[in-house]
Amino acid sequence: MKSAVLTALRKIEIKDMPLPEPGTGEVRLKVAAVGVCGSDVHYHEEGRIGSQVVKFPQVLGHEPSGVVDAVGAGVKLKPGDRVAVEPANHCGKCVYCQRGRQNLCLEMKFLGTPPIDGIFSQYRVMPEHCCFPISDSMSLTEASLLEPLGVGFHAVNLAKVGLGDTVAVFGSGPIGLVTLLAAKAAGAAKVFMTDLIPERLTFALKTGADYVMNPSDGDVVEWILDNTGGLGVDVTVDAAGKQETLDHCCLCSRRGGKAVIVGIPSVDRLLLPLHEVRRRELEMHNARRSNGEMKACIELVASGRINVKPLATHFFPLEKISDAFSLVHNYADGVIRAIIQPNGEL
Amino acid sequence: MKSAVLTALRKIEIKDMPLPEPGTGEVRLKVAAVGVCGSDVHYHEEGRIGSQVVKFPQVLGHEPSGVVDAVGAGVKLKPGDRVAVEPANHCGKCVYCQRGRQNLCLEMKFLGTPPIDGIFSQYRVMPEHCCFPISDSMSLTEASLLEPLGVGFHAVNLAKVGLGDTVAVFGSGPIGLVTLLAAKAAGAAKVFMTDLIPERLTFALKTGADYVMNPSDGDVVEWILDNTGGLGVDVTVDAAGKQETLDHCCLCSRRGGKAVIVGIPSVDRLLLPLHEVRRRELEMHNARRSNGEMKACIELVASGRINVKPLATHFFPLEKISDAFSLVHNYADGVIRAIIQPNGEL
Amino acid sequence: MKSAVLTALRKIEIKDMPLPEPGTGEVRLKVAAVGVCGSDVHYHEEGRIGSQVVKFPQVLGHEPSGVVDAVGAGVKLKPGDRVAVEPANHCGKCVYCQRGRQNLCLEMKFLGTPPIDGIFSQYRVMPEHCCFPISDSMSLTEASLLEPLGVGFHAVNLAKVGLGDTVAVFGSGPIGLVTLLAAKAAGAAKVFMTDLIPERLTFALKTGADYVMNPSDGDVVEWILDNTGGLGVDVTVDAAGKQETLDHCCLCSRRGGKAVIVGIPSVDRLLLPLHEVRRRELEMHNARRSNGEMKACIELVASGRINVKPLATHFFPLEKISDAFSLVHNYADGVIRAIIQPNGEL
Amino acid sequence: MKSAVLTALRKIEIKDMPLPEPGTGEVRLKVAAVGVCGSDVHYHEEGRIGSQVVKFPQVLGHEPSGVVDAVGAGVKLKPGDRVAVEPANHCGKCVYCQRGRQNLCLEMKFLGTPPIDGIFSQYRVMPEHCCFPISDSMSLTEASLLEPLGVGFHAVNLAKVGLGDTVAVFGSGPIGLVTLLAAKAAGAAKVFMTDLIPERLTFALKTGADYVMNPSDGDVVEWILDNTGGLGVDVTVDAAGKQETLDHCCLCSRRGGKAVIVGIPSVDRLLLPLHEVRRRELEMHNARRSNGEMKACIELVASGRINVKPLATHFFPLEKISDAFSLVHNYADGVIRAIIQPNGEL
Repeated sequence: MKSAVLTALRKIEIKDMPLPEPGTGEVRLKVAAVGVCGSDVHYHEEGRIGSQVVKFPQVLGHEPSGVVDAVGAGVKLKPGDRVAVEPANHCGKCVYCQRGRQNLCLEMKFLGTPPIDGIFSQYRVMPEHCCFPISDSMSLTEASLLEPLGVGFHAVNLAKVGLGDTVAVFGSGPIGLVTLLAAKAAGAAKVFMTDLIPERLTFALKTGADYVMNPSDGDVVEWILDNTGGLGVDVTVDAAGKQETLDHCCLCSRRGGKAVIVGIPSVDRLLLPLHEVRRRELEMHNARRSNGEMKACIELVASGRINVKPLATHFFPLEKISDAFSLVHNYADGVIRAIIQPNGEL
Repeated sequence: MKSAVLTALRKIEIKDMPLPEPGTGEVRLKVAAVGVCGSDVHYHEEGRIGSQVVKFPQVLGHEPSGVVDAVGAGVKLKPGDRVAVEPANHCGKCVYCQRGRQNLCLEMKFLGTPPIDGIFSQYRVMPEHCCFPISDSMSLTEASLLEPLGVGFHAVNLAKVGLGDTVAVFGSGPIGLVTLLAAKAAGAAKVFMTDLIPERLTFALKTGADYVMNPSDGDVVEWILDNTGGLGVDVTVDAAGKQETLDHCCLCSRRGGKAVIVGIPSVDRLLLPLHEVRRRELEMHNARRSNGEMKACIELVASGRINVKPLATHFFPLEKISDAFSLVHNYADGVIRAIIQPNGEL
Repeated sequence: MKSAVLTALRKIEIKDMPLPEPGTGEVRLKVAAVGVCGSDVHYHEEGRIGSQVVKFPQVLGHEPSGVVDAVGAGVKLKPGDRVAVEPANHCGKCVYCQRGRQNLCLEMKFLGTPPIDGIFSQYRVMPEHCCFPISDSMSLTEASLLEPLGVGFHAVNLAKVGLGDTVAVFGSGPIGLVTLLAAKAAGAAKVFMTDLIPERLTFALKTGADYVMNPSDGDVVEWILDNTGGLGVDVTVDAAGKQETLDHCCLCSRRGGKAVIVGIPSVDRLLLPLHEVRRRELEMHNARRSNGEMKACIELVASGRINVKPLATHFFPLEKISDAFSLVHNYADGVIRAIIQPNGEL
Repeated sequence: MKSAVLTALRKIEIKDMPLPEPGTGEVRLKVAAVGVCGSDVHYHEEGRIGSQVVKFPQVLGHEPSGVVDAVGAGVKLKPGDRVAVEPANHCGKCVYCQRGRQNLCLEMKFLGTPPIDGIFSQYRVMPEHCCFPISDSMSLTEASLLEPLGVGFHAVNLAKVGLGDTVAVFGSGPIGLVTLLAAKAAGAAKVFMTDLIPERLTFALKTGADYVMNPSDGDVVEWILDNTGGLGVDVTVDAAGKQETLDHCCLCSRRGGKAVIVGIPSVDRLLLPLHEVRRRELEMHNARRSNGEMKACIELVASGRINVKPLATHFFPLEKISDAFSLVHNYADGVIRAIIQPNGEL
């Protein structure tokens, strides 16, 4: 089988690899669709995210869907089953797993995060408990979008977005958009969104944003205060990880509001405006991937309550994966999610 | 002006009353629409709800909308403003108000609850802070449905219904239906509903229920377990207050699930199945009206996210109010909400 | 080795059993002290708790401490280590484990609960993750009291007892007393306790209760209202599982208060006073054992913040276990916890 | 009567003022004891805290106790009643009061915060609902310490410190110490504290800290990791508002931990280490004064559970108030709280 292997900074090579065999409790997936995430691009461009450092060679990719191809002992799934995949394999026994915080597991094995290889490959073995069957009505492309959708669900769950809440999402890239989808599904009455790229704002409006603004065009804080009776919003989300967006999170929040920082920031440190957050008694959450939200994502996408299809804007065969990385890195051609199809259209 | 006055058990008389004058911080409303609630019927039929006992004469009615007719000193609303009305006038200073539990206020004055007169009248004075302006796009009938909708919002908020949750609502009368609307708006993936009246199930399906069942037709617990992989649902709601519905709340809940009892039960005491709730570690909430959910109701109805219009099934002028009570008492003619229009169509 | 085996209703026989060998990840414990719990007595007297039914022969006992005697592969504990024991062996992978609700695990193996044998034996093999090392300053008798203490911790955690709260515990047996200890440690300002047995009230006072009352001597509801400015308490606890104590939980609670039912009730169903709980918007919790509170118990007992020693009132060798059951069943001789020492004093 | 008036930066003058008369619902207090808070020093030295700017003349002081001297209409308190005082007079009607967040009230009148005059005076009129009677066993000096204690309670409540938690408080000044007292009362098993001033660490140990360290003497992060099995603590508290203490909050927290920033930071902005907080999914709270914790403070101090007496280290008559400010500003002579007694010892 073929795998896309990161062999050096900004260098992906397609290599032949042995077909892996599933062990007890495992399945082998024929990989259908894998999105290229911003974190993949970080590893590709910089070789690291914070203290997590790539050792070459490394296979990236952690937003897959697939079809069960072979099964190990004790497995209930059957060859041919179509599945969405939870990339986080937690231990179930450590102190964090025991508190219901599996995403913080001390023994976490997460697809495509060093030193665990990812899934930009034609086949990969996964534990059965990471594979969630999907109904016939859901496409494998949609299924591959559930993992990023789960990141939005998790941000919304951390902030406990509820009925009638107002939400502002700063950054309208893929992470901002899935947070928008989750916030609306959770009962948000109004969602404000910003971005510096005009076509992203157009996309946000189509995806359900109620108000959009390009920060180049005016004062974001004023705009939000004007549209919330001077109070600010209930929940702010930093989906860009920049000084400006963090400031907006703090200054556009109502008193007693909540802010969530989601996604991978591009810098190590940002300034926190202390008096502003203190006077608001701001509650801040730092989101780490998602935490068991896959099942809810499946249910709400399957029921038609959430439509993720438009997020998949570009498709590439495995051989063209470097083109996909380049596209995503440059925010080119209106890309939201570039999808790799290692086995063509399944 | 004319008021509908309960002068004895099951006896409402239309009487001439002096037009009230608004004091400081108050407005006089020309009443547009007032729903007949199950609690009104309890007072009408039995003269009491638990330890709350009517002293005749008493004006009932607490689900109003209206148009501002005159204003007292220090008021920002203006004559002509169309408003939804929060019937709960809390003190803001007692220990419960200070904990954010205004619905439990020690000094509560609640429209139409003894000894406070209600609003089945052509005019009534209200504190300005109980009046919420609505946009032109919302009808005054819709506005009168926001108070019962708030009861559903409150039940859903107590249970913290979230993204992808499964919910079962036992009882598909008005309270069951508003809980359904709120649960779906809050991200519930699947809502199960039951009722003994077939046309109510039809109505529930049209209102968004995913599964409905008449308990006369089979085993409700089996039905729900079969449709939830044997686990039970995340949240159960008793919207009928009967032994059977309370049992279903306990037996259809998953482990760690939550149950909410909402609305006015028809008896004083019901049996709680102790081993069943203990083994599930069931968390139970008893809902008391609503608690500040009016603003969220307005936002979600105004935005079109929730459609309450179909709930208003019958309309009556003030003189025919006894017919409305009779209709509601007998669950006749498919009635959901019977609306009194003391000043005709406004 | 010797085990105490329940061979029929109310019949325990001491039998010779083969010494078990620890497997991978397991340790063999030389059992030091095991408390006789009310649930053991239920199985002994009635052969069941709700739908959990004993199949004879069955070894009971789930409140142990011990000394590591032998270890299997991959174990870090060493022979000679003194440990407290968590009797709940959860799977770590099911939907409840993943939500941090291990006590509700679908694959739970709980010591001494059918069909899993308990630990009224000289030796028993346990998974290492159920064994918590204790410091030299803690006795093995104290260590055996940590499991019931955890039940009190769990009740207090479910109700989120906090700084300055008032708490009423109805029932001053062992479960009531550990709830008292936990509530005081969690910052409760005043704890009220009741019991029908006068010497239990004396014991409760010595253990830290602020007010005690025998319901035979007057009106419990009045007593509590008189001592809380007419409001009722923040948290009520039913530690007896009787109609009278459940009623007190409902009637002595302040508006917006919380009630916890803890321990094994003696009947299947109790009447819930609906109007009383609705008007208070009472939040009710049904506690199921404990959920990961062992570590906190160890820390607070080791630091001297909580003193459990007085709870161990009687000691028996394994051969006299039937005497211990009889004592506990009859609440005789001021018994709180009767401790079985299968290997004498360790 | 005499008042201490801030007439310019770093200039307090004792002035004669007219004796104020209590209106309806108000009482006049003969002021017993008023602590000098760090925020008073900020206003004295810099004339501002963030966007809150003093207009001279301004009376400071907000940590009082007193004796009722005269009462207005409708008041239940009587002359001679000894009271603790809540300096926050909230409106009870705004959106934040209605959510139970009175400390964020849009119409807040807070003693000694511009433009509201404080209580460094011999007499002052207060609303009755801000005055809490104390028992004879509590001294008026203790009563004046309840307001700062409430700040510690609030920080602990925001972080939901619970049974067996480990807590690290960075900064051992008055705010650090009250947080320590609150954390221990709430069930914290171990509290770590740091400070650059050695005598403050000695004081912290005497007040109940389990571990103390001077950051000049080594690596704080290592020290805490070494004493928590490498995990970090459950709750971190920044009680100094400096870059180093904020960093410690982030780096000493366990995964899924909570951090609280309490007190007035000395700078406008501090750097937040993004990757560190993201990988931990740190939940951060910014505390704003306290929120209704006065009653709990009274109960726990009155019961002897918390001992605040040692915090009052220095006493001054009103005429020497500038000496008190100087002492506090310079952290001189081991000062924790300097208490002003405008009417001598009451």
